[in-house]
Amino acid sequence: MTPVELALPTTSLASLKPSTVMKALVYHGPGKRAWEDKPRPAIREPGDAIVRITTSTICGTDLHILKGDLPGVTDGRILGHEGIGVVEQVGTGVSEFHVGDKVIISCVTACLKCDFCKRGMYSHCRRGGWILGNTLDGTQAEYVRIPQADGSLYKFPAGGDDEALVMLSDILPTGFECGVLNGRVQPGDTVAIIGAGPVGLAVLLTAQFYSPAAIFMIDLDDKRLAVAKNFGATTLVNSTDGNAAHLVMEMTKSAGVDVAIEAVGLPDTFAICQAIVAAGGRIANVGVHGKPVELHMEKLWDRNISLTTRLVDTATIPMLLKVVDSGKLQPSKLVTHRFALNDTMKAYDTFGNAAKEGALKVILQNADEKNASQVVV
Amino acid sequence: MTPVELALPTTSLASLKPSTVMKALVYHGPGKRAWEDKPRPAIREPGDAIVRITTSTICGTDLHILKGDLPGVTDGRILGHEGIGVVEQVGTGVSEFHVGDKVIISCVTACLKCDFCKRGMYSHCRRGGWILGNTLDGTQAEYVRIPQADGSLYKFPAGGDDEALVMLSDILPTGFECGVLNGRVQPGDTVAIIGAGPVGLAVLLTAQFYSPAAIFMIDLDDKRLAVAKNFGATTLVNSTDGNAAHLVMEMTKSAGVDVAIEAVGLPDTFAICQAIVAAGGRIANVGVHGKPVELHMEKLWDRNISLTTRLVDTATIPMLLKVVDSGKLQPSKLVTHRFALNDTMKAYDTFGNAAKEGALKVILQNADEKNASQVVV
Amino acid sequence: MTPVELALPTTSLASLKPSTVMKALVYHGPGKRAWEDKPRPAIREPGDAIVRITTSTICGTDLHILKGDLPGVTDGRILGHEGIGVVEQVGTGVSEFHVGDKVIISCVTACLKCDFCKRGMYSHCRRGGWILGNTLDGTQAEYVRIPQADGSLYKFPAGGDDEALVMLSDILPTGFECGVLNGRVQPGDTVAIIGAGPVGLAVLLTAQFYSPAAIFMIDLDDKRLAVAKNFGATTLVNSTDGNAAHLVMEMTKSAGVDVAIEAVGLPDTFAICQAIVAAGGRIANVGVHGKPVELHMEKLWDRNISLTTRLVDTATIPMLLKVVDSGKLQPSKLVTHRFALNDTMKAYDTFGNAAKEGALKVILQNADEKNASQVVV
Amino acid sequence: MTPVELALPTTSLASLKPSTVMKALVYHGPGKRAWEDKPRPAIREPGDAIVRITTSTICGTDLHILKGDLPGVTDGRILGHEGIGVVEQVGTGVSEFHVGDKVIISCVTACLKCDFCKRGMYSHCRRGGWILGNTLDGTQAEYVRIPQADGSLYKFPAGGDDEALVMLSDILPTGFECGVLNGRVQPGDTVAIIGAGPVGLAVLLTAQFYSPAAIFMIDLDDKRLAVAKNFGATTLVNSTDGNAAHLVMEMTKSAGVDVAIEAVGLPDTFAICQAIVAAGGRIANVGVHGKPVELHMEKLWDRNISLTTRLVDTATIPMLLKVVDSGKLQPSKLVTHRFALNDTMKAYDTFGNAAKEGALKVILQNADEKNASQVVV
Repeated sequence: MTPVELALPTTSLASLKPSTVMKALVYHGPGKRAWEDKPRPAIREPGDAIVRITTSTICGTDLHILKGDLPGVTDGRILGHEGIGVVEQVGTGVSEFHVGDKVIISCVTACLKCDFCKRGMYSHCRRGGWILGNTLDGTQAEYVRIPQADGSLYKFPAGGDDEALVMLSDILPTGFECGVLNGRVQPGDTVAIIGAGPVGLAVLLTAQFYSPAAIFMIDLDDKRLAVAKNFGATTLVNSTDGNAAHLVMEMTKSAGVDVAIEAVGLPDTFAICQAIVAAGGRIANVGVHGKPVELHMEKLWDRNISLTTRLVDTATIPMLLKVVDSGKLQPSKLVTHRFALNDTMKAYDTFGNAAKEGALKVILQNADEKNASQVVV
Repeated sequence: MTPVELALPTTSLASLKPSTVMKALVYHGPGKRAWEDKPRPAIREPGDAIVRITTSTICGTDLHILKGDLPGVTDGRILGHEGIGVVEQVGTGVSEFHVGDKVIISCVTACLKCDFCKRGMYSHCRRGGWILGNTLDGTQAEYVRIPQADGSLYKFPAGGDDEALVMLSDILPTGFECGVLNGRVQPGDTVAIIGAGPVGLAVLLTAQFYSPAAIFMIDLDDKRLAVAKNFGATTLVNSTDGNAAHLVMEMTKSAGVDVAIEAVGLPDTFAICQAIVAAGGRIANVGVHGKPVELHMEKLWDRNISLTTRLVDTATIPMLLKVVDSGKLQPSKLVTHRFALNDTMKAYDTFGNAAKEGALKVILQNADEKNASQVVV
Repeated sequence: MTPVELALPTTSLASLKPSTVMKALVYHGPGKRAWEDKPRPAIREPGDAIVRITTSTICGTDLHILKGDLPGVTDGRILGHEGIGVVEQVGTGVSEFHVGDKVIISCVTACLKCDFCKRGMYSHCRRGGWILGNTLDGTQAEYVRIPQADGSLYKFPAGGDDEALVMLSDILPTGFECGVLNGRVQPGDTVAIIGAGPVGLAVLLTAQFYSPAAIFMIDLDDKRLAVAKNFGATTLVNSTDGNAAHLVMEMTKSAGVDVAIEAVGLPDTFAICQAIVAAGGRIANVGVHGKPVELHMEKLWDRNISLTTRLVDTATIPMLLKVVDSGKLQPSKLVTHRFALNDTMKAYDTFGNAAKEGALKVILQNADEKNASQVVV
Repeated sequence: MTPVELALPTTSLASLKPSTVMKALVYHGPGKRAWEDKPRPAIREPGDAIVRITTSTICGTDLHILKGDLPGVTDGRILGHEGIGVVEQVGTGVSEFHVGDKVIISCVTACLKCDFCKRGMYSHCRRGGWILGNTLDGTQAEYVRIPQADGSLYKFPAGGDDEALVMLSDILPTGFECGVLNGRVQPGDTVAIIGAGPVGLAVLLTAQFYSPAAIFMIDLDDKRLAVAKNFGATTLVNSTDGNAAHLVMEMTKSAGVDVAIEAVGLPDTFAICQAIVAAGGRIANVGVHGKPVELHMEKLWDRNISLTTRLVDTATIPMLLKVVDSGKLQPSKLVTHRFALNDTMKAYDTFGNAAKEGALKVILQNADEKNASQVVV
């Protein structure tokens, strides 16, 4: 994908005062993105907060949007649903956050008041869910408006590391909630993770909270598998030859794995999960799927398995903050590249060529916060 | 299916003493069954018990076997995996049961010692599982050998009713474990059961242990639906017109159901479950499937659902016995027809035409136990 | 306890316009209560709602307050933490409720935003918890101010019954959450409830959601036990002779009960629970305790039991509403007496003599809503 | 306690052939133990196995027996309920083990067939439970008879380490099941363990399976606390000054701990747990208690806590074997001293002076298995 550079529509913003303009990464239809001037967001509802972004990052989902896979995202949308920032302004209904607070922005907006929020299913909040960088302007910008701020922001802990904690906006809770918690990983378990991309690696990091005995990492790319080894995978399986399921069954002496976690989103990788799950085991889906899969109920109906799906709720951010603080999780392991926020276009180029660039997560650092020449590596 | 009546192979048994011959329902390949002489079973292993059958019944799975759907069942096999009886003889390794004990026979044989049994997953017992009337001779006979008797029999309670308790051999634990427990039915839930056959009705009866607020029963047959109404279903949906999912969504104001329980085993009925499950809901499969189904992961990946499969473990028989004893479950509601054990061929005719005959469960009563002319209704 | 009637402090309210005065039941120190004029409450915080009370009731805790057992309740406090009403006014931060909405008032105030609320532990809300009729003015009045209204009110369902649903403010969720859910009542269980007062009866009604096989009801009062019988208890035990534990053990053949639920709050009744809980069983405490109890760890340490405590969270109100709507719970069974709200003093007299009067829950009906002469029975 | 050396009662064994005599540690009433000749055990029941001990150890409970605290243990009893060995002989009912199999002996005997065993509550097995070295002769001997061998032995894994795996007989499952599982330790939790003796340290090692953020270790002895630090405790609290609870509350900013695990068995240490458990937290009792404790229900009734007791079931031995095999648990860390089995008397001297000797677990190695002079450190 070669994104087309667009001329900045500066004319429409010409009459704005400097303080009301900001830079942002804007989607302009499939294949088109630009780093351009946009009006600074303002409070619209009592529950809103305006957050000045200090650190952001790019998600695989952003690439999907750029491919046009999510038609709900329309021309002119600011992308991004992950970020760390500082509260600039709050609406009258915000009680938990104040101007000057440093915050972690959840990729999921939660009103806390609807039936789904009361069950902790923020992903299905009747007023929120995943809307940032989707149906609302997002976080790859100098400023962002966060609706339902009390439910959608988390206090940045004293002494925290921006790079580490921006991983709590989405990728770590996604791996943990959809993969590890839904898969009910237990001490001594044999776990297989299919897909060693950033989200599969987030599963890998957080699965180790529960001391599984073995973690098989399955991917097409030996470089990614090498990273997985470094992150704690006990066995690597390159699935290029279509033999992955067979190998896993062999290595488990035909027992299969207690937990198979799908972190790709394709029928073929989903098929591997079905082929390797043990009787009594769990398949936890993390990947975003674009088409149906074949479910082999003729083989699985009597296997006592469970299969789960989940859009991340980010309800575990407080728990993850504690684990990070204790030193038992180092989210910054996922960071491979750093750019100034002003270089978001370049960051996309790199992240869009993840395989070639060896990119996992790329950090976008607001140059106003630190000296950009220092932070860009 | 018109089963062919076979000449009895009495010659081969002619030399046996009367006390070593018995009558049994024998499978002779697809479409062929006979009520014929067979040698009485004898103890082979220390864990065996020989049980004289007093009451048995026929399962939908027996009809599948007769259709040839289960090629593992070979010519000459005595069918049946449900039954009540009296212990005639025990091996030296049996400690829980003694000659003269009246027992409920589980459809699942459990050694209690293997890793699966220790987890309560008797269905996957490494020495047992579902083998009666499958790879071992079964219970539609005057006598049956029960291996691993200590794990495969349950004491018949004083004052118990044969007809009621033979439903604990298979159908009630199947409905309860695979449908209700796996579906995690909770007070106030909206539940849909797809399939109002005997097993779907067993789900219906046991789902009410947890006081769901609404139970939708979906089936093609209005007569079965009328039975479901009588058994506690709150809403009936005839799915003949292909509109069932649409109707359920309408009646639930587009929320869908908390629990969708598949009790048929076909791609179409499985599709209904997917179409009506609420965000955060559970699909519990009970039906036996013969082919793959299409799983709409492109719609379900972000719906936070769980989907379970299970072969019945019958681990809940002790719990079910307590509920029956308390009067809160009347399993004999499932009984529509009664035959003398000697009339098992006729009972198959009736059960094989369940729709026309209005048959749910047909009781086979050993005429030696009671006067057959009294028990046959 | 003979409450002293107090002269109304009307002078201080003389200058108020009629529309700003209301009647309320006011606590004036141990043993003293009055039905007197108080200023109508007004919105103070953006999250507040003003609710006009249509139905209220009296709780055993109100009697404790009047005895002086809760020194945190000070002179001048309006009592009451249960009620149904109509929203008269909302603050700018209230999003879930509008003027004219009929509502159920939870006895527990929940901000929904603090760490405890996010875990569903509203009882320990950092801004709320049980404050109504405790540290804030309560619901035995014509009007009440409800802080954190979005988390503390529930929509009254169309066609609902005031008398039934006012039981959802406190007593039914208390019995259900603290007793039944914490006690993990399961189908087939043997349950003992110690205390057949209103809250013990609420346990009894909601325990039946899970189809236990036997429910022992233990109390000193045969009249209360007779009510329990009528409500579904299977065995009654009058504990006057100190022999209750012995009897329960005898009736359970020394096994004890799966779940022992304490609904009194005294060392003696707590001792019964310890004496009758089965190995592997649960003790769920519901009663409010004023002093330490002796815990027989020398007997219990190896009995694999669990013991729970809980202040009601009322997080199950939505679930209970569904069960009530389905007809599987009839809360109005708990109602024995009805008074006009203006007769709250008389209602206290009756409720304060519960044993003699045979009182369980007394309804206070606002005469402005219905014709009081009709509603008072 | 100075145990009295007894003259060996060799006369009574004089007529036995050498192969039918063995050495064993025998209890002769309070304060009296001897290493003396006893008849070798023989098969009595079909489920029995005779195991030749290769490695054993001493438990704190053995010291309690020697003090006379367990009057059920009678004069002449061989002590010990932990051990590794080799199967010498099996009864006709044993199916899982064969002569020559190396095994781990569970401290708990399980028939697998009774109602408690079927629930995984082996501790309350109707034919077993903790009987070895208690009401039956135990494992501090050259040979031991293991009843219900199929449920009471576990296969020793190829390549396993005797010293490490003998810790799976009792102490590690005790710490894990009674402390960690019952306490439901979760990632990010704050855990306090009261008591840094061997069992408290077993809790400490296994609590880390779940990645708690902080583990407070509370003990009177700085040497033990230093060991705890080395084993992963994050904060040490010497409770000598009676200020431990106060300190923990201060360090947790008055929140208290999510899980308080009692690993001593005294009213004072139990009181610390009550004082430091957070609202919504768990108290998990591991210690053996000899007298009642005061439970502050007047403070705890509204704190939403749970309190659990448990005698170890050892049902988690298979899980623990997997975690040991994965290298994530090193049980041999608990071993401080090694003796030849023939020196069991000396081993008791050392273990009986644990504080002075710095003893945690002392290994008893059968000199016939390895060269004793090599193994004794």
